[in-house]
Amino acid sequence: MKRVLVLHGPNLNLLGRRETSLYGTASLKAINAGIAKLAKQERIKVETRQSNLEGELVTWIQEAEGRFDAIVINPAGYTHTSVAIRDALAAVAIPTVEVHLTNIYKREAFRHRSYVADVAIGQISGFGPTGYLLAIRAAIDHLKTARPTATR
Amino acid sequence: MKRVLVLHGPNLNLLGRRETSLYGTASLKAINAGIAKLAKQERIKVETRQSNLEGELVTWIQEAEGRFDAIVINPAGYTHTSVAIRDALAAVAIPTVEVHLTNIYKREAFRHRSYVADVAIGQISGFGPTGYLLAIRAAIDHLKTARPTATR
Amino acid sequence: MKRVLVLHGPNLNLLGRRETSLYGTASLKAINAGIAKLAKQERIKVETRQSNLEGELVTWIQEAEGRFDAIVINPAGYTHTSVAIRDALAAVAIPTVEVHLTNIYKREAFRHRSYVADVAIGQISGFGPTGYLLAIRAAIDHLKTARPTATR
Amino acid sequence: MKRVLVLHGPNLNLLGRRETSLYGTASLKAINAGIAKLAKQERIKVETRQSNLEGELVTWIQEAEGRFDAIVINPAGYTHTSVAIRDALAAVAIPTVEVHLTNIYKREAFRHRSYVADVAIGQISGFGPTGYLLAIRAAIDHLKTARPTATR
Amino acid sequence: MKRVLVLHGPNLNLLGRRETSLYGTASLKAINAGIAKLAKQERIKVETRQSNLEGELVTWIQEAEGRFDAIVINPAGYTHTSVAIRDALAAVAIPTVEVHLTNIYKREAFRHRSYVADVAIGQISGFGPTGYLLAIRAAIDHLKTARPTATR
Amino acid sequence: MKRVLVLHGPNLNLLGRRETSLYGTASLKAINAGIAKLAKQERIKVETRQSNLEGELVTWIQEAEGRFDAIVINPAGYTHTSVAIRDALAAVAIPTVEVHLTNIYKREAFRHRSYVADVAIGQISGFGPTGYLLAIRAAIDHLKTARPTATR
Amino acid sequence: MKRVLVLHGPNLNLLGRRETSLYGTASLKAINAGIAKLAKQERIKVETRQSNLEGELVTWIQEAEGRFDAIVINPAGYTHTSVAIRDALAAVAIPTVEVHLTNIYKREAFRHRSYVADVAIGQISGFGPTGYLLAIRAAIDHLKTARPTATR
Amino acid sequence: MKRVLVLHGPNLNLLGRRETSLYGTASLKAINAGIAKLAKQERIKVETRQSNLEGELVTWIQEAEGRFDAIVINPAGYTHTSVAIRDALAAVAIPTVEVHLTNIYKREAFRHRSYVADVAIGQISGFGPTGYLLAIRAAIDHLKTARPTATR
Amino acid sequence: MKRVLVLHGPNLNLLGRRETSLYGTASLKAINAGIAKLAKQERIKVETRQSNLEGELVTWIQEAEGRFDAIVINPAGYTHTSVAIRDALAAVAIPTVEVHLTNIYKREAFRHRSYVADVAIGQISGFGPTGYLLAIRAAIDHLKTARPTATR
Amino acid sequence: MKRVLVLHGPNLNLLGRRETSLYGTASLKAINAGIAKLAKQERIKVETRQSNLEGELVTWIQEAEGRFDAIVINPAGYTHTSVAIRDALAAVAIPTVEVHLTNIYKREAFRHRSYVADVAIGQISGFGPTGYLLAIRAAIDHLKTARPTATR
Amino acid sequence: MKRVLVLHGPNLNLLGRRETSLYGTASLKAINAGIAKLAKQERIKVETRQSNLEGELVTWIQEAEGRFDAIVINPAGYTHTSVAIRDALAAVAIPTVEVHLTNIYKREAFRHRSYVADVAIGQISGFGPTGYLLAIRAAIDHLKTARPTATR
Amino acid sequence: MKRVLVLHGPNLNLLGRRETSLYGTASLKAINAGIAKLAKQERIKVETRQSNLEGELVTWIQEAEGRFDAIVINPAGYTHTSVAIRDALAAVAIPTVEVHLTNIYKREAFRHRSYVADVAIGQISGFGPTGYLLAIRAAIDHLKTARPTATR
Repeated sequence: MKRVLVLHGPNLNLLGRRETSLYGTASLKAINAGIAKLAKQERIKVETRQSNLEGELVTWIQEAEGRFDAIVINPAGYTHTSVAIRDALAAVAIPTVEVHLTNIYKREAFRHRSYVADVAIGQISGFGPTGYLLAIRAAIDHLKTARPTATR
Repeated sequence: MKRVLVLHGPNLNLLGRRETSLYGTASLKAINAGIAKLAKQERIKVETRQSNLEGELVTWIQEAEGRFDAIVINPAGYTHTSVAIRDALAAVAIPTVEVHLTNIYKREAFRHRSYVADVAIGQISGFGPTGYLLAIRAAIDHLKTARPTATR
Repeated sequence: MKRVLVLHGPNLNLLGRRETSLYGTASLKAINAGIAKLAKQERIKVETRQSNLEGELVTWIQEAEGRFDAIVINPAGYTHTSVAIRDALAAVAIPTVEVHLTNIYKREAFRHRSYVADVAIGQISGFGPTGYLLAIRAAIDHLKTARPTATR
Repeated sequence: MKRVLVLHGPNLNLLGRRETSLYGTASLKAINAGIAKLAKQERIKVETRQSNLEGELVTWIQEAEGRFDAIVINPAGYTHTSVAIRDALAAVAIPTVEVHLTNIYKREAFRHRSYVADVAIGQISGFGPTGYLLAIRAAIDHLKTARPTATR
Repeated sequence: MKRVLVLHGPNLNLLGRRETSLYGTASLKAINAGIAKLAKQERIKVETRQSNLEGELVTWIQEAEGRFDAIVINPAGYTHTSVAIRDALAAVAIPTVEVHLTNIYKREAFRHRSYVADVAIGQISGFGPTGYLLAIRAAIDHLKTARPTATR
Repeated sequence: MKRVLVLHGPNLNLLGRRETSLYGTASLKAINAGIAKLAKQERIKVETRQSNLEGELVTWIQEAEGRFDAIVINPAGYTHTSVAIRDALAAVAIPTVEVHLTNIYKREAFRHRSYVADVAIGQISGFGPTGYLLAIRAAIDHLKTARPTATR
Repeated sequence: MKRVLVLHGPNLNLLGRRETSLYGTASLKAINAGIAKLAKQERIKVETRQSNLEGELVTWIQEAEGRFDAIVINPAGYTHTSVAIRDALAAVAIPTVEVHLTNIYKREAFRHRSYVADVAIGQISGFGPTGYLLAIRAAIDHLKTARPTATR
Repeated sequence: MKRVLVLHGPNLNLLGRRETSLYGTASLKAINAGIAKLAKQERIKVETRQSNLEGELVTWIQEAEGRFDAIVINPAGYTHTSVAIRDALAAVAIPTVEVHLTNIYKREAFRHRSYVADVAIGQISGFGPTGYLLAIRAAIDHLKTARPTATR
Repeated sequence: MKRVLVLHGPNLNLLGRRETSLYGTASLKAINAGIAKLAKQERIKVETRQSNLEGELVTWIQEAEGRFDAIVINPAGYTHTSVAIRDALAAVAIPTVEVHLTNIYKREAFRHRSYVADVAIGQISGFGPTGYLLAIRAAIDHLKTARPTATR
Repeated sequence: MKRVLVLHGPNLNLLGRRETSLYGTASLKAINAGIAKLAKQERIKVETRQSNLEGELVTWIQEAEGRFDAIVINPAGYTHTSVAIRDALAAVAIPTVEVHLTNIYKREAFRHRSYVADVAIGQISGFGPTGYLLAIRAAIDHLKTARPTATR
Repeated sequence: MKRVLVLHGPNLNLLGRRETSLYGTASLKAINAGIAKLAKQERIKVETRQSNLEGELVTWIQEAEGRFDAIVINPAGYTHTSVAIRDALAAVAIPTVEVHLTNIYKREAFRHRSYVADVAIGQISGFGPTGYLLAIRAAIDHLKTARPTATR
Repeated sequence: MKRVLVLHGPNLNLLGRRETSLYGTASLKAINAGIAKLAKQERIKVETRQSNLEGELVTWIQEAEGRFDAIVINPAGYTHTSVAIRDALAAVAIPTVEVHLTNIYKREAFRHRSYVADVAIGQISGFGPTGYLLAIRAAIDHLKTARPTATR
């Protein structure tokens, strides 16, 4: 049974309560419930966590080694500023899928650059909560087809 | 019954035959078969086309109006150079999902910029042929939830 | 009797049907009718054509040599990306007026740069369909005053 | 009866006397006479002024409010350096047409950027004195068709 | 009674002890006392906090919702690097005033860019501890005049 | 009794009449009255002037020497383009506070750079007319605490 | 017997007729004759084609696979704008020599960048029609010495 | 008898009174006296003027035509921002020598660019008041040797 | 007896376990043992710490004041993104040596810029674990020769 | 009998001994022998020289005047850094062909810029030792067809 | 017995005599004596040389092959401008340590880029003469641990 | 009796023979004669030297210390590329005047940047051979007025 760690970055705990025209009305709890439902359906084990602390996300990624087969991460604001998260992902080399709720290419220029993008398998952005479900499917498919993980 | 137009840009007719370490071993025919299978399963109508001509892609996008509910496009080399394709997508305003087989953020710097990205709902890159399937799911989900199409 | 070739670039065949808040409600047919009317009034011969294909526009420009005294061109999306159209205009050295329906300087940064601008006599942008009529007047005036054509 | 204010920026008082290969042989007086002739023909009222002082041009633009229906401006050297003129045009929100005698895109790179361009209806550049006549026609047409003034 | 949260970013706990020629001799305690005095005088409630952790500042901003009417923040070193703090401020949409003890435009180029500036009402920089008092006055005035909060 | 010169740059004479959603509804006269009221309350002498001419502002700054103890300046459009005003402020070395009605960091990129910022004590931007009152308070506080004027 | 495909890009069909001071007086027919003569002499088979269409050039490159041992290409205007042609060359991995009639480094800055250069064996620019002959010699030599084709 | 116009730009009227460590202790009057002395010695006629107004400097340059054989100009702050002064100098085409008291290449980056430099014969910077005397000698020498004036 | 604080940044706790081709096979424990051995030999006191949290590193640097004579820091991923760490080092002004295991100039462009470099005495990069030993020697030497600490 | 000077820049004396995967296995001696053979065959006189000193290459170029009809130069590392060599070539105005053994457009970005390129007739890069032979043919052809030497 | 070549670049012969506040008071002779002492102690053979000529340094590097096991180089001014020295180091592939007396990241921006950095094992900067001793230790350690030399 | 060293950089030995439209018809010998004549008249001692070697110029500058009171240098092509010459001038701290025969601001962009400019007293460019005479006068004046030498 494959195990996937889903990491939510800073401010995602506010989902559904604020800036709903931008991020949608689903709460993080609801999103996690949707993820759990898909996990059950796809017979995988999923664990979800959220943190506002860059260093805590780094630590969770480090600890994922040997305990998870894939990571789905929405680094939120740290996407564009964190070399530490990038380095953690590159270090553990667990296949990673990057997700963004909004289409980051429609937003401020500084959001167009992701430090995570080129250490991940791929990126999914712009589909709201559905993005997480697509990401999990992408991770499962990746683990099945066993393409070698290109972390760099 | 929802209708989705899948457009493959230049050189994608070579898939499975060349640069397989980069693009994988699946042929375009096989990818289209996978798409057809998913369409059947999801009870939608899908049509797939490929062209090496920028202007032909523009025309196909224009003609999609009123005939398709969503577009899934992999503009390949034109992703990074075609304002004409961008303008066609913005003009017809059919919800569009952008797909890339490879992770464009791991490749040359000129591939990091997409003229299509900010007129699409979202972007999926790096998951090989699976990306098309994820894109179709994303399009279906988008049509169901009826989020207003933000083309710009 | 002076002969002017009016070239419409990609997506201009959609005029009046889509994005009317940006491009106005006049159809390409109506614009061409307005051009024809002015041509009659000014006793010149005008021919209008539209293409979505960069290479076809290149070929039409090449064929204009010896058959037309001036070109009025709205290269639309190719304005910002086509060296081939620029080179064709420079090669035939027929006096050329560049037209844009919208004010390209109010739009995305990539629209501020035109490959055609410095091989044309001049540029007219932002006046909607009227821009074509101004462009034809500018071309006629140019042919009358016989300023030498500075193509570079 | 529509009223149009035509503003000539710095050094345009020298027209016809200096750098005639670049700016042509028509004097400012002759250009103003041509403008007056067109005004009569089109049954509008036109007033022309020239200043070498940025602040004086700002003041004239401010005073145009309520007294003119449109402005035609050739900001000359201030085109590329004056935020103050831009702000004055944006403040009074009188429909404005920007004119340049020469094709500014064939000249030094610093002339390619205009602070006025995106607060004007549109821009006409490269047609010599004829440019003013085209600009007045563009302004008249704009006032007739009553497109809302997009100053930004 | 209006409630204002004053947030001090990293290293501000050292105030008055180090680099006094740059940051002045007042300790953070003294500054907070000055703030409390003004609060009393203006009959508002003020709470002050300091943290070296980006994620803790994010959490405090999130928790301010419904508990504070305005935020005064000196993000210190995180001003120039934290999208997470920016996103938190944009999410809670509590009117925010940005303060800097030093004139950041006299210092290194990387300090000229603030991720917070365009999600705040305004910015005050260069006036030492007085800047906090001005910021609180600005916040009070803003709450009184009830200008709609433009967070973007 | 301390003397403060308040300088308003180009187009500020239009305040309250135009672009009120951007600049507010208070007229320059009303703002000056508010300044006078604060001056009385704080027992300082204030003089206010407005000019559309860069050179006149330069001259007024020069003449302030020996006659004023501080300058509060809103250079408006000249903020981003005037080295001459910067040099005048640096030359007279009278403590200067820079004010902007709007938050210049929310506006066009060219407004993010101020030639005045690093020869002033500090900058206050985004608080509307209140900004002038904060600036005067900042100036008074600066004169009291006698921090040496760092003009560069 | 080695087979070489010589591809001429847009506007090269005009050679010898226009801009002869820049491109020389030899017609494309004459150049092709010179190529044929060298082919005979070197006992190789050469085929020459010209197109104004980017997509047609892409298709010809694709079709060259298995039918030609080397490609000599002058992509003309598409040199600087076509990722699609680049991708086609990289895909078929036929050893390619890039030729330019003029010295592209003496011309406009946008001509200094070639999308083809780093997927070709090498580049020859500035020698007029002779460049094609040198390119064929380079291709023959390359095939003889059997250096492995480095396409990236 | 040759006639030279010496123009002093904004803030140079403060010379000798302010920022003497940067600009020296000589007053403008003293500098002008030194210039007059050299003029007498070299048997030329010199006239000196100073203005804080960009437009006034433009007008003086225009009026110099036919009345002066050479211009020596220190545009001060306008050096780096005035296209209008550049255009005036280019228009009258009177041989011009650019002078700066300080070494502008030792100062802020924005002072390294001069709009006047490439329409002048040459530039002298960094020698204090002596620079004016060198500039007059350079102008005299230029007039004697009758090198054609290259204004661009 | 001199006291040196050795700080290891994020992900360095993984040393020896992951990406060993890049970072070597020595564990952090082994590296710290090597450091301890050198400390004993050089008769200094050394303390080593590692954290994944930016803010914790900031706090440790602040607390070092008065307790340590020098800092040796490998800020890892925070090297390129942390102004907060830079500011902490500048504030405490304890002589600091920056170390990197890998040669950061052989890696991604974003690793070439260090926010710490110009507040440190110097930088040592590329020598693997040996780098820490060299850094400690450099710190000891620095403390002996008592060169004044240039923190900026 | 035409005379050609072949200049080899720094480090080319190491050819065939080091980095053979990049530069090939032919020694400089062998390359010179190949050149001599072609010279004999083409009945021209060729002289070859190598230097590691920029200034010596400058001197040799100067001395070539009147003694050689063409120069073939591989400036190696000085290609990207030497204005002095460029100026020497421009000064003597002997037709020059630039050669590079490797394809400089496949290598580091700093190698993409050549100071020699736009003072040479043309450039040949990427063909290994064959490049020299092609260059000599290009030079001979150039001398025969007597195209005027465009050095700039 | 390991052999190390220590190369001093231009102007280092002046050490101890000029700019001592920047470079320290130790003469090159004293530095070389210190190096010799360490060599003796570490039982290696060291040779030191200094040159002001870029090409001479290139030649010395070439000649080091087979005669030295490591190079320690302070390229001084050539650090930032010499591709030739870089190419020589890459060609001979002798393990190289780059040293700078001053912290080049505290100095002018042009000193932040080193052409040598990414062909060296590592870089040591900012520790004055001690830097050479650290560099020799680093070289010895490198030779002992036999990490493969990554020259690029 | 003051002593001035005049240094001529690479290619200046060709003066008067080549590119006379750019550099004038005076030979270096004639220029040196003019310099000698002025030296006699001004009662100073002048020595002139020319070299094509960067390192030789560095050495001459070093040797000037204690033997010359001022340096006049035209670094020619090395102006834009030599940090070594800059460092030599900064090291010896002999007052230096930079001269250029042509107006470097009218030429290629890479000539606009001088590594020497901000370590010299000042710069004189564009006046042909006269520039040297002005430079010597500037040096003499500088020595007389004893302004402290600001080398940075």
